[in-house]
Amino acid sequence: MNELTSVQNFSESLAAGDLRSALRAIGREFHSRRWSLGTSSNYSVVTGRNPLELLITASGKDKSALSNDDFVSVDSSGTILQDYKTSPQKSSAETLLHCLIAQSFPDVGAILHTHSIWATTLSRAALKPTQNQGVVCIEGYEMLKGLEGIRTHDTAVNVPVFRNSQDMVELSDRIKDVLMAPDESSSDFSPSHGFLLSGHGLYTWGRTLAEARRHIEIFEFLFEVIAHQNILARLPESQ
Amino acid sequence: MNELTSVQNFSESLAAGDLRSALRAIGREFHSRRWSLGTSSNYSVVTGRNPLELLITASGKDKSALSNDDFVSVDSSGTILQDYKTSPQKSSAETLLHCLIAQSFPDVGAILHTHSIWATTLSRAALKPTQNQGVVCIEGYEMLKGLEGIRTHDTAVNVPVFRNSQDMVELSDRIKDVLMAPDESSSDFSPSHGFLLSGHGLYTWGRTLAEARRHIEIFEFLFEVIAHQNILARLPESQ
Amino acid sequence: MNELTSVQNFSESLAAGDLRSALRAIGREFHSRRWSLGTSSNYSVVTGRNPLELLITASGKDKSALSNDDFVSVDSSGTILQDYKTSPQKSSAETLLHCLIAQSFPDVGAILHTHSIWATTLSRAALKPTQNQGVVCIEGYEMLKGLEGIRTHDTAVNVPVFRNSQDMVELSDRIKDVLMAPDESSSDFSPSHGFLLSGHGLYTWGRTLAEARRHIEIFEFLFEVIAHQNILARLPESQ
Amino acid sequence: MNELTSVQNFSESLAAGDLRSALRAIGREFHSRRWSLGTSSNYSVVTGRNPLELLITASGKDKSALSNDDFVSVDSSGTILQDYKTSPQKSSAETLLHCLIAQSFPDVGAILHTHSIWATTLSRAALKPTQNQGVVCIEGYEMLKGLEGIRTHDTAVNVPVFRNSQDMVELSDRIKDVLMAPDESSSDFSPSHGFLLSGHGLYTWGRTLAEARRHIEIFEFLFEVIAHQNILARLPESQ
Repeated sequence: MNELTSVQNFSESLAAGDLRSALRAIGREFHSRRWSLGTSSNYSVVTGRNPLELLITASGKDKSALSNDDFVSVDSSGTILQDYKTSPQKSSAETLLHCLIAQSFPDVGAILHTHSIWATTLSRAALKPTQNQGVVCIEGYEMLKGLEGIRTHDTAVNVPVFRNSQDMVELSDRIKDVLMAPDESSSDFSPSHGFLLSGHGLYTWGRTLAEARRHIEIFEFLFEVIAHQNILARLPESQ
Repeated sequence: MNELTSVQNFSESLAAGDLRSALRAIGREFHSRRWSLGTSSNYSVVTGRNPLELLITASGKDKSALSNDDFVSVDSSGTILQDYKTSPQKSSAETLLHCLIAQSFPDVGAILHTHSIWATTLSRAALKPTQNQGVVCIEGYEMLKGLEGIRTHDTAVNVPVFRNSQDMVELSDRIKDVLMAPDESSSDFSPSHGFLLSGHGLYTWGRTLAEARRHIEIFEFLFEVIAHQNILARLPESQ
Repeated sequence: MNELTSVQNFSESLAAGDLRSALRAIGREFHSRRWSLGTSSNYSVVTGRNPLELLITASGKDKSALSNDDFVSVDSSGTILQDYKTSPQKSSAETLLHCLIAQSFPDVGAILHTHSIWATTLSRAALKPTQNQGVVCIEGYEMLKGLEGIRTHDTAVNVPVFRNSQDMVELSDRIKDVLMAPDESSSDFSPSHGFLLSGHGLYTWGRTLAEARRHIEIFEFLFEVIAHQNILARLPESQ
Repeated sequence: MNELTSVQNFSESLAAGDLRSALRAIGREFHSRRWSLGTSSNYSVVTGRNPLELLITASGKDKSALSNDDFVSVDSSGTILQDYKTSPQKSSAETLLHCLIAQSFPDVGAILHTHSIWATTLSRAALKPTQNQGVVCIEGYEMLKGLEGIRTHDTAVNVPVFRNSQDMVELSDRIKDVLMAPDESSSDFSPSHGFLLSGHGLYTWGRTLAEARRHIEIFEFLFEVIAHQNILARLPESQ
């Protein structure tokens, strides 16, 4: 099995409405693309809205080898739902961030969190030691049109970068302040399609799982381009 | 399925004269080589010359999963031909550029447009903010001999870089001025084998689909080499 | 067969208690990930503790094509055990380092040694020509939590770098001095999860083979991130 | 089919004494590792010594899709042997260099020529515009032990870099002067295991095809390491 087979499995699972199989295919694909190594990353889909319910990968699983049992369902506070209480699985501490995103954007249907080489590198470089918040600005690239709703390259997407924390309540409060800011459009830090945790990774989302997956692909492409661009732009001119 | 299987599918489809299958195999290959991520890229083949007809990928399709229905036929103005008018597919806005290339070069049989990491990076670096046009110069590499008609490394291929635009009429007019310049050989910007859109990607072509595919492979190789070369050349000498 | 298939073979072999098959799957995976090219690398598992016994890859084997016969069993001094004396296989000179690690850490169950692009590059850059010992400091990355026992990104893992040598007795004595240092926690050079040989590669370990494999994956990820980070941090600020 | 399958096909073909199948497997592997893109590269095996006979890939073939007919046999002057005269295949112009290498080293059994990203980049950077000859020095790396006969990392392998030429007689004369130099050991340019053509690629060889293939793998690894090393060494120290 390889990346292309995984992508095909993903499409077939989606078509069959089998969300677990689709998430498992994403795990295999993202592991082979080096976006979900070790036991890093979390993936979720919104399975109910009133009240909010998310199906999310259980804590500490190797994403290249997820089984159908490696998921839990949680409510809006991240608490595991009754039917899963006898399961040996735990929800990840980062479940809170998935809940926060699902609550902040009523039309979000899926949330993907990954740990890639370039997201880690750029997010770390974007934050000075004394800062709690930074930004990775992506401006003028045609590939931005792969982010939902963007119709021209002639725009700037500001991806907020938050200082990493192991205290998920504190971290989600900091992110909430930005996500729920009264005038989103006026803020450089208003995350339209995703945000970064410094030295940690990317959160992005979509109305559907397919859209969220595409956003990961687009962001990862752009992060790598920006890193190379940055190096070329900062080297001295050749003599 | 993987890259080598895709390449084999491509050859078999070509041998059988099945252009859609060949283009679908190119989509799978180029996605796995990271040249056609998201729903980026467009591929076309010339299916008629008098009058001009192109078979081209429909707008907004994931290139790793093209079906036989994900194509449309267009005339020289990019208008979808009658038989396709009941199809739900749309032609891409960039169809105009494919038409322009097919019209400018009477022996072109296939046109490929891709969005790679290095084409995006180099094309962006090649254009200063105030410029409408730049150039990526590829000089002295043996691999240049992979471009049709080039018999020695001791030559320079100037790949023009055009400022990106969402206005395809305006953009194609700018490109047309260069493609149709009276004395092509005297111009640095005369694109013999391909051109770049800044921060966007590569257009290349060939008499056959196999030749166009080889040109993508050659250009992508050379873009990556040039980027590394550029970095090594601009670093300070070691002490 | 490819990387994902190898990972699956690995899990199935472990589940079946078939250590040789698991090590062979690791060889195929690590070769395709470019961590064990040529005939480089050595892998071992602890098969006995009183007295110490290790099952280790024989000397000079291509890791992408290990057979069940490409292993030997050795005692704590690295001497091949009786049952293997008629085998044509030899133990690698580096067997001594595997023995040293197994003896230094009583709960270690597996030891993996690889030669990757980034481990080679970073370990070489970490050592000045006149030094016998250096360090690669990995600080503040979320991915550090993939190393056993680490619960927060807010920590620093110092990976010692030892000058390379072909004299395994001399080299293992130098490493032993550090591994057996009375107050490990006070030393920057105390290797908690692994160490590097300069211009050579990585040694890491785990209580189980799965844990050691995960440590390779985590370290390799972090080495690549640190190299890119290093480049971005040392370039002049853009004007 | 993928890289690991190709490597397995290679081993099985060698075991069966089927040289064409082994060379075809090398083609598929090297294409997927980006060492033989487009129609670049040539591979040969020595099939006779008195008089010299080589079986070599025909000119202009896609190395990912070689058939059993894509080879020719040549004599020591590179002339196609009688049995092949009715074949539509041509020998490559670079056949002369294969003949020269086979004649210079009596124990050589196979010669491989590749065009990789890093061989192209480093070989180009190693030659100043006014020079006909340069060198890539590989010193102090453990992976050097993958080159036949090298027993310690504590050595320097000087890979000569020759200015590229389309005149194979002129080029092979220049290389011959170096290969046949009376006191090889005293010359920095004496190629023990391979040489580079600037902006073009690598030639390496071995007593067997397996040894030559391993040398490609080792050199490619080391070229990439050296490029990264070079960048890290030449950046300003961080403040």
